[in-house]
Amino acid sequence: MSFTDDAWARTASLRTAIEELAFLAELADGTLAPAAFRHYLEQDARYLAGYAKALALLAARAPDAAAGSFWARASHTTGVVEAQLHQDLLGGELLAAAGPATGEPDSSPSCLAYVSYLIACAATEPYPVAAAAVLPCFWVYADTGVRLAATARATPDHPYARWVATYDDPGFQQATSSARDLVDAAAAAAPGEVPAMHRAFGTATRYELEFWRSAHVQETWALPLS
Amino acid sequence: MSFTDDAWARTASLRTAIEELAFLAELADGTLAPAAFRHYLEQDARYLAGYAKALALLAARAPDAAAGSFWARASHTTGVVEAQLHQDLLGGELLAAAGPATGEPDSSPSCLAYVSYLIACAATEPYPVAAAAVLPCFWVYADTGVRLAATARATPDHPYARWVATYDDPGFQQATSSARDLVDAAAAAAPGEVPAMHRAFGTATRYELEFWRSAHVQETWALPLS
Amino acid sequence: MSFTDDAWARTASLRTAIEELAFLAELADGTLAPAAFRHYLEQDARYLAGYAKALALLAARAPDAAAGSFWARASHTTGVVEAQLHQDLLGGELLAAAGPATGEPDSSPSCLAYVSYLIACAATEPYPVAAAAVLPCFWVYADTGVRLAATARATPDHPYARWVATYDDPGFQQATSSARDLVDAAAAAAPGEVPAMHRAFGTATRYELEFWRSAHVQETWALPLS
Amino acid sequence: MSFTDDAWARTASLRTAIEELAFLAELADGTLAPAAFRHYLEQDARYLAGYAKALALLAARAPDAAAGSFWARASHTTGVVEAQLHQDLLGGELLAAAGPATGEPDSSPSCLAYVSYLIACAATEPYPVAAAAVLPCFWVYADTGVRLAATARATPDHPYARWVATYDDPGFQQATSSARDLVDAAAAAAPGEVPAMHRAFGTATRYELEFWRSAHVQETWALPLS
Repeated sequence: MSFTDDAWARTASLRTAIEELAFLAELADGTLAPAAFRHYLEQDARYLAGYAKALALLAARAPDAAAGSFWARASHTTGVVEAQLHQDLLGGELLAAAGPATGEPDSSPSCLAYVSYLIACAATEPYPVAAAAVLPCFWVYADTGVRLAATARATPDHPYARWVATYDDPGFQQATSSARDLVDAAAAAAPGEVPAMHRAFGTATRYELEFWRSAHVQETWALPLS
Repeated sequence: MSFTDDAWARTASLRTAIEELAFLAELADGTLAPAAFRHYLEQDARYLAGYAKALALLAARAPDAAAGSFWARASHTTGVVEAQLHQDLLGGELLAAAGPATGEPDSSPSCLAYVSYLIACAATEPYPVAAAAVLPCFWVYADTGVRLAATARATPDHPYARWVATYDDPGFQQATSSARDLVDAAAAAAPGEVPAMHRAFGTATRYELEFWRSAHVQETWALPLS
Repeated sequence: MSFTDDAWARTASLRTAIEELAFLAELADGTLAPAAFRHYLEQDARYLAGYAKALALLAARAPDAAAGSFWARASHTTGVVEAQLHQDLLGGELLAAAGPATGEPDSSPSCLAYVSYLIACAATEPYPVAAAAVLPCFWVYADTGVRLAATARATPDHPYARWVATYDDPGFQQATSSARDLVDAAAAAAPGEVPAMHRAFGTATRYELEFWRSAHVQETWALPLS
Repeated sequence: MSFTDDAWARTASLRTAIEELAFLAELADGTLAPAAFRHYLEQDARYLAGYAKALALLAARAPDAAAGSFWARASHTTGVVEAQLHQDLLGGELLAAAGPATGEPDSSPSCLAYVSYLIACAATEPYPVAAAAVLPCFWVYADTGVRLAATARATPDHPYARWVATYDDPGFQQATSSARDLVDAAAAAAPGEVPAMHRAFGTATRYELEFWRSAHVQETWALPLS
C-alpha cells in the first residue's frame, strides 16, 4: 500500500468528523449564516497567505527540480486564489451574501495554529514530513469539494453557488493527484521518515477539521492583544 | 520609550490575566495537582524542543555576530534545560510528586500552536518581528518566576520546591535583559517593523497565557490522530 | 533616483566588462566553440536548479502575498526552463551543435559560488537584500539578451539561433520589470538596508560576469573530489 | 566502515594537497608574510560569521534536541571565536605581527564561495547532507592544527605563537569527535543520503584547501563592485 493510501485509511475517523460538520452541511445546502461564511472567507484568505509560504519553503527544499517546480507553482496558485478571495471580500457578489466587511481581520486561533504548523514543518522538518503535512489541504479539500459542489449545484438560488463551484475544479483535482505522487515518492525514498509523515498528515487533517469547525462558531481569541 | 517598555505596557491586561491564573497560584503555594504539574512539565519539554529551533533560526538571521551568538547560546541553553526536564520526568524527585509517566506525550493544542508560531515567525518574518516573538518566553517567565519563587520558598515542604527555585535564576534574568536589548536595537534599526513587532510580542504573550491555562485543564485534542 | 536605477548606474563598469566578454561576442555571432556552449548549457541547468530554490525562499519571506506570488511563479518558471534545458541537452538540435553529452556534470566553481551565494542570501539576509541579490540574473540577462538576439537574428545559419532567440522573450522582459518594482518597493520600505542591497546587487552582477567568463574557459576544479 | 571513516579515506588526495600548502608550512615555521597572515585572519573572521549561521540553521533542523543543542553550542562558540579574532585584529599582539588594519574587508572569492556553500546546504539540503558539509571545517582544522601547533611550539620566537597554539585546543578536538558522531548517526539513519553526503564532505574539504591557498596569494576579486 502506498503511503498516501495508508495515511488516508488511518485518518478515516477524522474525515468522518469532517463530513459530519454542520459548517459543511450548511454550506452545501446554502443555509450557512452569512456571518459564518464571511468569517470562513476571511480566515481562508489569512490561511492561504501562510500556506503559500509553506509551499514555497517546501519548493526550496525539494529533492529535485520537478518536485520543486510543482510546489513553487502551487505556492503561486495559492497566492492567486488568495488575491481573488480578497477582491471578492472587498466587493461584489460574495460581499452581498456575507454581510459587511470587518476590516483586516486577525487570524483566528485555529487558523493561526494550522498555518504556523505548516510553515514550521516546512522550515525545520525533513522534506518528506513537510510534504506530508501540506497534503491534507489539497486532498481533504478536493475530496470534500466534489460532494459539496454536487449538492450546491442541485440547490436553486444557492447563495454561495459561484464560490462552491470552484471546489471541484479539475485542475485542483489534478494538482492533488500530483501532490500525492510526490509525497509517495518521498516516503519510498526515506522509509525512516514514514512514522513522522503519518503524524504530520494526521495533524494537518485534524487542523482541517478544526478550521471548518472554528468558522462555524466564528471563533475569536478569549483576550485581545492589547 | 523603548520598544520593549512600550510592548510591556501594551500587554498589561494579558499579564494581569496571567497573574490571575489558577495554575500559577497553585504552583506557587504547592497545591497544584500532581497530574497538572506533570502535564505542564511534559508540555514544557515539548515546547522547549521547538523553542530551541526558533532561537536557532533567529541566530542564523541575526544582523551581526554578537546577536547571532546570543541567540545561538540561548538555543543551546534551552536544549540543556529540555534535556534536564526529560531526565527529571523519567525519574527522581519530580516524578514522585507528579505521578506516573505517560510515555512520550503528544504536544497539546496550545503547546503546538505556540511553538509552531515561534518557529514560523523565525523562518519567514523579518528578524525584528521574530525577535519580538521569542521575547515573551524570556520575559514573562522571568517576571512570573521571581514572584513564584518567593512564594514557594516561604512554603514549608513545597512539593515542587526544587523546580520552582530555578525560576528566578540570576543567569536567566540576565539573559532576559540581553534579549530585551537586542529587540530594542532591532526596533530602532527598523522602525517600519514596529507595528508587526507589537503584534508578534502580543501574540506570544497571549500564548504564554494559553500555555499555563491549558496545563491547568490538562488540555488534550478533541480527536486522536487515528 | 530609485534604488534599481542607482544600482544599475553603480555597476556600470561591471556591465562594461560583461559586454566585452569573448563568450558573449562569440555567442552573438555564432563562432562560439560547441564545447564552450555545452559547458555553458550544462552549468546553466545547474545554476537554474539552485536559482529556483533561492526564488522559492524569497517567496516564503516576501512582505505580502503579491510579492510572494511573483517570486513563487518565477521559481516555477525557472524550473520549467531548467527542465527544457535538460531535455535539449539530452538530445535534439542543441546537442548536435554542442557535441556529445558528458553525463551529469558537476557544478563549476563559478556556478557553485554564484548559486550558493543567492541561496545563502535568500535564507539568512533580510528580504530586501535577498531580493536585490536575485535581481541581476533577471536584469543583466534581459539587457544582454536583447542585443544578443538582435545580432544572432542577423547571422545566417546561426548554430545557436533557437536558443539565443529565447533571450529577448517579452515575458521575460516583463518579469524583469516586475522584479525591479519589487526591489524598489523593498528599498523604499527599509532604507536602512540600502547599503547592503547595493553590495548584494553588485556581488550578483559580478557573479554574472564570472559565470559567462568561466563558461568560455570551460572552468573546472583544480582538484577532483576524490 | 563508518561514513566519516569512509569520507576521510576518500578525500585523502585533497588532504595531501592541504598538507603540502605553502601557507601551512610557513605558518608552522613562522616565516609566513605578515600581510598574508593578516589576510587570513580577516577572511577567517568573515568566514566564521557565516559558519555560525550555517551551524545555527543546522541546529534548527536537527533530528533531536541533543543534536540541535550541540550545533547551537558550536554556533555560539564560533561567534565567540570570531569576536576574539576581531578584537585581535583591531589591536594587540597579532596586529603588530600582521601589519596595519585595512578597514572592514570584503570577503575574498574563496571565502564567500565556501561560506555561501555551507549556508546554502544548511538551508536547503537534507540534514545529513548539511551536517556532512560542515564537518570538514571541524575535522580538517583539528587534524591540521595538531601538527601545526607542534611545529610552532618548537620554533623559538614564533611570531604567531599565541594564535597557532589555539589550534590544538582539547575542547575543539572533543567537539570534532562529537560532530563526527552526529554525522555518522545521520548517515546510519538515512542511507539514501550517503552519496550526497560524500559529495558535500568532499566539496567542503576542497574549499578548506582553497581557503588556505587563497590566503597565501592574498586573493582579491578581479573587479571591484563599483
